[in-house]
Amino acid sequence: MEPSLKKRIFGILEPGDEDSKYFDPFIMSLIVLNVVVVVLETVQWLYVRYVPLFHAFDVFSVAVFSVEYLLRLWSSTEDPRYYNHSSLSGRLRFMVSPMALVDLFAVLPFYLPFIIPELRFVRAVRLFRLFRVMKLARYSDSLQTFIDVLRLKKDELGLIFFTIMILLIISSSLMYEAEHEAQPDAFSSIPAAMWWGIVTLATVGYGDMFPITPLGKLIGSVVVILGIGLFALPTGMLASGFAEVVQARKEAKERKGMVCPHCGRVIEGQLVDTICTAREDAREEGRKK
Amino acid sequence: MEPSLKKRIFGILEPGDEDSKYFDPFIMSLIVLNVVVVVLETVQWLYVRYVPLFHAFDVFSVAVFSVEYLLRLWSSTEDPRYYNHSSLSGRLRFMVSPMALVDLFAVLPFYLPFIIPELRFVRAVRLFRLFRVMKLARYSDSLQTFIDVLRLKKDELGLIFFTIMILLIISSSLMYEAEHEAQPDAFSSIPAAMWWGIVTLATVGYGDMFPITPLGKLIGSVVVILGIGLFALPTGMLASGFAEVVQARKEAKERKGMVCPHCGRVIEGQLVDTICTAREDAREEGRKK
Amino acid sequence: MEPSLKKRIFGILEPGDEDSKYFDPFIMSLIVLNVVVVVLETVQWLYVRYVPLFHAFDVFSVAVFSVEYLLRLWSSTEDPRYYNHSSLSGRLRFMVSPMALVDLFAVLPFYLPFIIPELRFVRAVRLFRLFRVMKLARYSDSLQTFIDVLRLKKDELGLIFFTIMILLIISSSLMYEAEHEAQPDAFSSIPAAMWWGIVTLATVGYGDMFPITPLGKLIGSVVVILGIGLFALPTGMLASGFAEVVQARKEAKERKGMVCPHCGRVIEGQLVDTICTAREDAREEGRKK
Amino acid sequence: MEPSLKKRIFGILEPGDEDSKYFDPFIMSLIVLNVVVVVLETVQWLYVRYVPLFHAFDVFSVAVFSVEYLLRLWSSTEDPRYYNHSSLSGRLRFMVSPMALVDLFAVLPFYLPFIIPELRFVRAVRLFRLFRVMKLARYSDSLQTFIDVLRLKKDELGLIFFTIMILLIISSSLMYEAEHEAQPDAFSSIPAAMWWGIVTLATVGYGDMFPITPLGKLIGSVVVILGIGLFALPTGMLASGFAEVVQARKEAKERKGMVCPHCGRVIEGQLVDTICTAREDAREEGRKK
Repeated sequence: MEPSLKKRIFGILEPGDEDSKYFDPFIMSLIVLNVVVVVLETVQWLYVRYVPLFHAFDVFSVAVFSVEYLLRLWSSTEDPRYYNHSSLSGRLRFMVSPMALVDLFAVLPFYLPFIIPELRFVRAVRLFRLFRVMKLARYSDSLQTFIDVLRLKKDELGLIFFTIMILLIISSSLMYEAEHEAQPDAFSSIPAAMWWGIVTLATVGYGDMFPITPLGKLIGSVVVILGIGLFALPTGMLASGFAEVVQARKEAKERKGMVCPHCGRVIEGQLVDTICTAREDAREEGRKK
Repeated sequence: MEPSLKKRIFGILEPGDEDSKYFDPFIMSLIVLNVVVVVLETVQWLYVRYVPLFHAFDVFSVAVFSVEYLLRLWSSTEDPRYYNHSSLSGRLRFMVSPMALVDLFAVLPFYLPFIIPELRFVRAVRLFRLFRVMKLARYSDSLQTFIDVLRLKKDELGLIFFTIMILLIISSSLMYEAEHEAQPDAFSSIPAAMWWGIVTLATVGYGDMFPITPLGKLIGSVVVILGIGLFALPTGMLASGFAEVVQARKEAKERKGMVCPHCGRVIEGQLVDTICTAREDAREEGRKK
Repeated sequence: MEPSLKKRIFGILEPGDEDSKYFDPFIMSLIVLNVVVVVLETVQWLYVRYVPLFHAFDVFSVAVFSVEYLLRLWSSTEDPRYYNHSSLSGRLRFMVSPMALVDLFAVLPFYLPFIIPELRFVRAVRLFRLFRVMKLARYSDSLQTFIDVLRLKKDELGLIFFTIMILLIISSSLMYEAEHEAQPDAFSSIPAAMWWGIVTLATVGYGDMFPITPLGKLIGSVVVILGIGLFALPTGMLASGFAEVVQARKEAKERKGMVCPHCGRVIEGQLVDTICTAREDAREEGRKK
Repeated sequence: MEPSLKKRIFGILEPGDEDSKYFDPFIMSLIVLNVVVVVLETVQWLYVRYVPLFHAFDVFSVAVFSVEYLLRLWSSTEDPRYYNHSSLSGRLRFMVSPMALVDLFAVLPFYLPFIIPELRFVRAVRLFRLFRVMKLARYSDSLQTFIDVLRLKKDELGLIFFTIMILLIISSSLMYEAEHEAQPDAFSSIPAAMWWGIVTLATVGYGDMFPITPLGKLIGSVVVILGIGLFALPTGMLASGFAEVVQARKEAKERKGMVCPHCGRVIEGQLVDTICTAREDAREEGRKK
């Protein structure tokens, strides 16, 4: 027996299937091209020259993404996650899922000016088209990996972030006191001095603000020596978190068949378990709120 | 039997209790707001516009923090750490504890100008209000974690710091010799050249000082290649120390009930033990001095 | 019985043999000298002064490298990798091997202008002489180690690279929107703003582009704090990958005699096995294409 | 029986003994003060004001260090390392030991101008006084730790250094080709462009040289993304090497009594053994040369 049209469309739309071997690369290329076009449109001479092309491509993309969204909405009743619900309740649940919202926001900015004409002249609306890049999240583990890493290391990262903030405020205030009189324009207030603090602690050092008094240079030296280790700490934590998560994924892949009852992903190995538990906890907390 | 008023107030003031579920967030918000106000006050137009508001907020904060300090002092006899002492001796011991000193210094700058009127015009007094941020230490493990990490890695960090200092002095002296003639204003002395050394070795590179002679550029290249690894080393050490301490904390949390006889914190697991021993050693050294 | 001349020449040309104890250092010095000469030739006064010397050295180098290439081609039939093939087919297989192509491209730019005279005036042809540095790859494990490390960590590096690209595009677009009006020349388009993004996220911070508006500085601060950890992540991964590969090599060296059937290198130990398998997989993929 | 005067003086001069509890801090303070004086002397107004003081201090330091050197030379026959030799041969062996050479070079620059009067006017002679800081090496494990770390990681560091050099040459050459026409003064030759390469790859970014053409910016972006990970790699290696060496030292300290037959230091644990073997190998290599 042939599968129903709805089932087949669902299969095509879901990533990673045999059915979607033509659809996946097509939609991914379209997303990447959209990002490239938004970036290139801001180059004056390119925009002037190819404005009809840019416009046509935008209309075509919105058309494809709109049809994709509607088909996803229609076939969402085939999704095991919304299986046990009535077709309306299941579709509503699908509509508020993160990826469905991303799909909606990817096309909405195009239709909005037709409803609220004033928006037509707001330049920043263009930026919302960059939001389409989020559609790639469906095809990549990247985002999920990052969320897992952040969740695994949230205690350490929180501590460091808090300490960095305090160091930043204290060092910027000291520098403001030391340099305000010598450079009243550059170090005009503590918030202004905090721009110096961030640019220095991150070792970017543009050179638009730096101490010129001996006291300011002394404070700057101490801050730099104390602070740089601190600013670079999160990297070390992310790196080790990343290694742990990727390792757990690899181990999990080798033991296919076992599926986590919480998140529907392959598991086994202590860490994956930890991640799943953490994810479950996070969800439960979300539910309580 | 109802607990005494003193006991109840002690319970409210101590962080993390059920009794303090309203007090803790209130005092923490007040501390954070104080920091925000000190920072924003330095913005000229904000200060001009809201000067009465800023002043009123400062008076209110000092009033709250003063009452808090007096209540803590009064109820400190309920603290198990000062239990076995007479009420006067126990309160004196409380007064010289680090957190009590922080509480005192958080309000003292406000009262001092009433006693020594000359201080009213010293701008830097304002900075002491930033000291209030230290009151947060009571509610956060952050500071304690850092102290633990530094204690665990003090040998390595000391070695590196010593080596960095020597590299800094040698490279700055060489650069001074190489650039002094070509840029007598920028590289006017070895201490001046050390500002170049710190800004370069930390990879900040403001661009206010850099070698322009071929010899200077050659020395700069060698220093950069040799020195950057050195300057970034403490980060790696802090990162691994952090991971070890956080790991030990997590393990300790899971085995609640066992308490370190030295520092009154939950223990078990080799590292926590090491930390406690290190802490005890440090205390003993302090006592000897 | 004396080995044939071809066998002896093959032995001399292959690195690391007793026979090549004079040839290896000679050819390596010549390669390094070639790089030094290409670099020094661009210094105007040196070029003017020593132009005949530079030219003579280039002719001499090309002569040596050409003879070396021809001898390698002739003696390649002694190579066990091309043993079981007919002498023509074996030599053709040798010619398309990576190192043989490097040897060819190292001398080709010298001969090309004789065939296509127009190339004589193309300045960039000179750069191709830098390609000779690749000939060192035969004498160093460096390149192979790097390829092994990249292969081992390709999943993590891919994820990070993808995330960095997205962060770069989003932050550059936001900065463009914030700064375009205040600095229309510097932030003229999103591609122009991406130069700011790369220079900032990599913490280079030349100081040729930086935000001057409050909104721009706010966006810059968030981007710097979020992004630097990300940009430094690959280093952590490479470092651990490097350590693993070097460790595996050391272990392998101690168990001489066992040779990987895939890549002809000494093996044993799980990781070396993984590397060999990965290498084999990569080759198979290459074959399929 | 009282120990002989020579034995007592040897005991006082050797660091870490009960006998040297007054001498060690004195000589260390004198060394540090010498460095501080060399640094401060270059500050014009300080030098003008305190020139007799600076001179007197230098004479005093040289006197102390000279007497120290002669006493060390005289008492060196008590050193177990020079025990089995005749008193002349033992003293000669002591004179060519690294620390004795450091002691000699620390005072020699003072006496040289009396022998060769022309040296009196060579400004750089002053720099040699900085060499006195090396005398601290006797009292610190710092230098030895670094040498151990470098020895342990010499393979990895060599590989990385080689790769960095190649990347530096290639990227500087490409940048030279791209920017030479637009900025003939800044990118005047490949060696000049290499200053850009080092400053960029090390993420210092002074802002004295940066690409301005689109092609240059593109090359710069690729170089920055590829190269930064590479430049930061040695730090990761040093960090892990450091951790291993410090760990091995700690373990060794706990098992006092066992002494390495090669280097006379406490051993046990595989790593310490490895370090000792490496040290022995290095010495043997040195002997062969």
